[in-house]
Amino acid sequence: MTIRQLVIDATGCSGPLADAAAITAAMRGGAMKVGAQIREESCATYVPHGVTAVLILAESHVLVSTWPEHGLALVDVLLCNDRMDPHEVWATIAAVLRPSDARIREIERRIGTPEPA
Amino acid sequence: MTIRQLVIDATGCSGPLADAAAITAAMRGGAMKVGAQIREESCATYVPHGVTAVLILAESHVLVSTWPEHGLALVDVLLCNDRMDPHEVWATIAAVLRPSDARIREIERRIGTPEPA
Repeated sequence: MTIRQLVIDATGCSGPLADAAAITAAMRGGAMKVGAQIREESCATYVPHGVTAVLILAESHVLVSTWPEHGLALVDVLLCNDRMDPHEVWATIAAVLRPSDARIREIERRIGTPEPA
Repeated sequence: MTIRQLVIDATGCSGPLADAAAITAAMRGGAMKVGAQIREESCATYVPHGVTAVLILAESHVLVSTWPEHGLALVDVLLCNDRMDPHEVWATIAAVLRPSDARIREIERRIGTPEPA
């Protein structure tokens, strides 16, 4: 079985890209929206600015890295439960980051035992 | 400018997929091998087994999720420094996870300001 990881390069962001608390809150909101369970949170802030924040979920993870000086955020969403829509997580995060453009790709990831050939 | 995120689906793993300490040690080893700076570490273990572990780096992140019951590990490596080779990080992790097969993809991510059109 396979599942799709969302990989998003969000540009022209007018949201709070240097605000770790706001970014993490948006990520939590997205996870809760789809019913995912947050297991761990971790975050690093950079000098002069920028954030990488991750939520480890029961269903895998949400990760956001930001470059405020470029209005850029990279976002990964992997939900190993096909009843949860990763686009809903992204929509919640996007409402906070407010990109003017976003390149959204779906990367197929393997989950479970390979099918016999 | 763009940079490549390694996205690896490793199957047939005979390494310690349920051992969070061993997996995290392998990830640390990979990060150190390329000279990346580890800023934060976080890890969740699942019932009955399985691990998601992340290193937040000065250069972005390394993330591993495992399903021991399927011999499966999903690995993401993003290094926002083009002098660091993400394949070296993966090689160090692979030496511990010991997959019989790995699907390795390079996903182009945007770093920095978009080029003018």
